[in-house]
Amino acid sequence: MKIYTYTSKSAETRVASIINRGLGFKKKDYLKVSQILEDVRKNGDNALIKYANQFDSPGLSIKSIRVTSDEIKAAAKKVKKTFMRSLNRAISHIESFHKHQLCNSWINTDRPGAFLGQIVNPVDSAGVYVPGGKGGKTPLVSSVLMGAIPAGIAGVKHIAMATPPTKDGTVNPHLLVAAKKVGIKEIYKLGSAWAIGALAYGTETVPKTDVIVGPGNIYVTLAKKIVSGTVGIDMIAGPSEILIIADNTTNPEFTAADLLSQAEHDTMASAMLVTNSQETAKAVNIAVEEQLKYLDRKDIAEKSLDSFGAIIVMPDLTSCIELANRIAPEHLELHIDNPFEYIGKIRNAGAIFVGDYTPEPVGDYIAGPNHVLPTAGAARFASALSVDNFVKKTSLIHYSKEAFKREAKDIIRLAEIEGLDAHANSIKIRLKI
Amino acid sequence: MKIYTYTSKSAETRVASIINRGLGFKKKDYLKVSQILEDVRKNGDNALIKYANQFDSPGLSIKSIRVTSDEIKAAAKKVKKTFMRSLNRAISHIESFHKHQLCNSWINTDRPGAFLGQIVNPVDSAGVYVPGGKGGKTPLVSSVLMGAIPAGIAGVKHIAMATPPTKDGTVNPHLLVAAKKVGIKEIYKLGSAWAIGALAYGTETVPKTDVIVGPGNIYVTLAKKIVSGTVGIDMIAGPSEILIIADNTTNPEFTAADLLSQAEHDTMASAMLVTNSQETAKAVNIAVEEQLKYLDRKDIAEKSLDSFGAIIVMPDLTSCIELANRIAPEHLELHIDNPFEYIGKIRNAGAIFVGDYTPEPVGDYIAGPNHVLPTAGAARFASALSVDNFVKKTSLIHYSKEAFKREAKDIIRLAEIEGLDAHANSIKIRLKI
Repeated sequence: MKIYTYTSKSAETRVASIINRGLGFKKKDYLKVSQILEDVRKNGDNALIKYANQFDSPGLSIKSIRVTSDEIKAAAKKVKKTFMRSLNRAISHIESFHKHQLCNSWINTDRPGAFLGQIVNPVDSAGVYVPGGKGGKTPLVSSVLMGAIPAGIAGVKHIAMATPPTKDGTVNPHLLVAAKKVGIKEIYKLGSAWAIGALAYGTETVPKTDVIVGPGNIYVTLAKKIVSGTVGIDMIAGPSEILIIADNTTNPEFTAADLLSQAEHDTMASAMLVTNSQETAKAVNIAVEEQLKYLDRKDIAEKSLDSFGAIIVMPDLTSCIELANRIAPEHLELHIDNPFEYIGKIRNAGAIFVGDYTPEPVGDYIAGPNHVLPTAGAARFASALSVDNFVKKTSLIHYSKEAFKREAKDIIRLAEIEGLDAHANSIKIRLKI
Repeated sequence: MKIYTYTSKSAETRVASIINRGLGFKKKDYLKVSQILEDVRKNGDNALIKYANQFDSPGLSIKSIRVTSDEIKAAAKKVKKTFMRSLNRAISHIESFHKHQLCNSWINTDRPGAFLGQIVNPVDSAGVYVPGGKGGKTPLVSSVLMGAIPAGIAGVKHIAMATPPTKDGTVNPHLLVAAKKVGIKEIYKLGSAWAIGALAYGTETVPKTDVIVGPGNIYVTLAKKIVSGTVGIDMIAGPSEILIIADNTTNPEFTAADLLSQAEHDTMASAMLVTNSQETAKAVNIAVEEQLKYLDRKDIAEKSLDSFGAIIVMPDLTSCIELANRIAPEHLELHIDNPFEYIGKIRNAGAIFVGDYTPEPVGDYIAGPNHVLPTAGAARFASALSVDNFVKKTSLIHYSKEAFKREAKDIIRLAEIEGLDAHANSIKIRLKI
C-alpha cells in the first residue's frame, strides 16, 4: 500500500477518490434497469420467468419460483450441526441487540384539550434480498439474518426473501435453513432487478411488499433506487469500506488482517489506515504485503488496495479522527490506547469497532448490531439497517371544541397568508356553530 | 362529486386511479433534471446563476444569492404583529411536539465482555427547501417551520434554506422572519432542481448539506430523488390527499369544508369521503357543491374533485377503515361517533385527525405534529418528517479478549461458509497470541 503524509496533495487526491468512488450510475444501466422494472410491473410472472431463465436458471418455471416446504426440510439435513450452533448463537445476539431499537407510541397532552401523539406500527410486509454468492457456492447467511431479524422484531407479519437460484434451479441449503430460523415463510428464486421489481409491484406469484432491504450488485442497487418511494428501502449501498485509526500501541498483524478483511470484499472496496505514527504505518504495510500472499481472494484484495487503499500519517490522533469524520466510513476501527476517550469526538461512522479484539468480522456475524451500514460517506446522515426501517409512525391529532376555538384565529391567519382560502374556510365554518 | 358504492367496479377503478396518480416520472424530466444537477455539480455558482437568471430573477448576481442580514432586519418591519403572534404560537407547539421524538443513545451489556451500543448524533448540516408560492405572493411560512424546527431540535448546527426569489430578486418577508425565528442562518435565493443540486453538492457560495427536506414541484421532487444517497432526503412526495371517514353523526358542512381544503391544493390532489351512510354521502355532496362556489381557488378544487375526488359508500365502518388502510392516505379524518375506538384498527395513514373539531388545517399550521407527510400510499412504510430525519445512529462494538475468544470459532465458521477467507483470518490471527 502507499503511505501518504497528511500535508501532501496526493493524500488529498486519494481521499477524494475514495469518498467519490461509489457514486453515480451509468445512464445506460439506469435505462436498462428501468425497462426491466417496467416489464415486471406490466407483465408480472411472465417477465420474471423470462429473465430468470435467461440469466440464472434455464429450467426454472413459474411454478418452481417459490421454494417449497419440502426443499426447506431437505435443506435442514444438508447442513452441519456446528453450523446450526453458530447460526443460533448469531441469531440470539442479533435479536438481543435489535430488541433495544423498538420504539413506543406516545401521547402528549401538554395543552388543555389537545390530545397529540405518535403511533408506531410495523409495516404489513417486507422483502429481504440476498445475493447469489458466486452461484450459490458462498451463501451469504448473515445477509438473511441481518435483513429479516429486525423485520421480525418490528412485528412484520409477512417476510419474503428473494435470492437468485443456481443454474440447476436450487438455493444453497444454508440460506434456506437460516431463512426458516428467522421466520421467513416465502422464499422466491429470483435475482437482480426483476426480483426487486417483483417485491415492489407484486406479480401473480409474488405478493408486493412495503419495504425491501438487502445488499446487491449495481442492478439491484439501481432497482432499489428506482422503486424507492413506491416501497421503502434500506439504503443505496455502495462498495464496502473500512478506516482504521491506529497508534503505536497497535499490533500491526491485527491491523493488517483487518484491512485485508475489507479489501477482499470486492475490487471497489476501500481499506484505509490513518495513524499518528510513521513506524506503525510502515509495520502495518509490511504485514499487509506478507498476509496478502496467503489469501484465497488475493487478487481481489490486491486490486482493491491498489485502487482504493491508503495509509495516511497524520500529526496526531485528533486529526486522525477529523479525517474519519470527513470520510464518514462504513466501518471505523480504533486500534489506539484508551479508545473510549475518543468516542465522543466521532460524528460520522456507520459502526465503531473499539479495541484490539473487535475486528470488523465480529460485527459482520455475531456481535448483534446490524452489518448493513451506510457507505460512500452516507454515514454523515444515514444509519445501520434497524427496526426503524420496518415501522412507520402515524401522527394522532385530536382537538376539543375549546382547544379549537382557542387557536382558530391563528390557523385562519396562517392559512390566509399562504393563500389557502379553503383551509381558512374549514376553520371558519366551525366557528359559526 | 360522484358517489360510488363499494360493490361497483367503477369504485374500484376510481380508488386505483387515486392510489396510482402520483407515481412515475417522465423520462424526459428525469434526464433534464439529471443534466441540471450535473451542471451544478461541475460548474457550481456559474450554473446556479445561469438558471436563476433564466427562470426566476434576471437581475440576480452570485453575490446577491445569499439573503443579507439587512434584508432580514428589513423584513421584520414589514410583517404584522398579529402574524408574529400566530407564528410564535405555531413554533412553540411544533417544538413541543417534536421534542418528544428525541432518542437517547443506549448501551447493551447483556453478555460478559461485550459492550454494545447505539450512539445518536445529529447530522452536521441540513437544507430546507421552501417553494416560491405564486411568485412570492403566498409565502409558505409553515414549510419553513416544519422543515427547520425538527432539525434544530435534533441539534443540527448549520441549517440552510433555499427558496426561489421573485422576479425583482426578493424573498417574501414572512418567510425571512419565520426563518430567523427558527434558527436558520443561511438563506439562498435559489429554486427548483438547481437549489437541490447546490444543497447536495455544494458550490463556491452554498455549502453542501447532509440532509435536504421540503416540498416542491416535479423538478424539485425528481432532483431530491436523484441526489438521495449522496444526501439524506425526507421523502419523495406526491400530490396531497385526504380521506375522511364519516358516519351519520357528522356535520356535512364540516366534512365538505375539509374535503375542499384538500382539493384546493392542486389539481392532482385527492379528496375522498368514505362513509357507511348513503344519507351522509348525499348531504356532504350537496354541501361541497354549495361551498365550492365561494372559493378563491374554485377552479383548482373543482378540477381536483373531478379527477381524483370520490364519495364511496361502504357497508360498515370496519370496511371503511379497511379501505383507508389500503389507500394509506396522507391525511385521515375521522368524523364518526366514538372515534378512538377505531384508532387501533388503522395501520396505514400519515396522520389521523380525530373528531369534528380537528380539521386538517389544525395539523397543517398549529397543532404540533409535522405536516410533511407520506403521500400516494407511502404511509404504508413511511412517516412524517421528524427529528429522526436529522439524526443518524452509529453502532458501537467492543469485545474483551475473553468475549472474543468465546465467540471466535463461530465467527470463523460463518465467514468460511460465506467464502470470506480474510475475514476468518482476522479472527485466527488474534487467536494465535
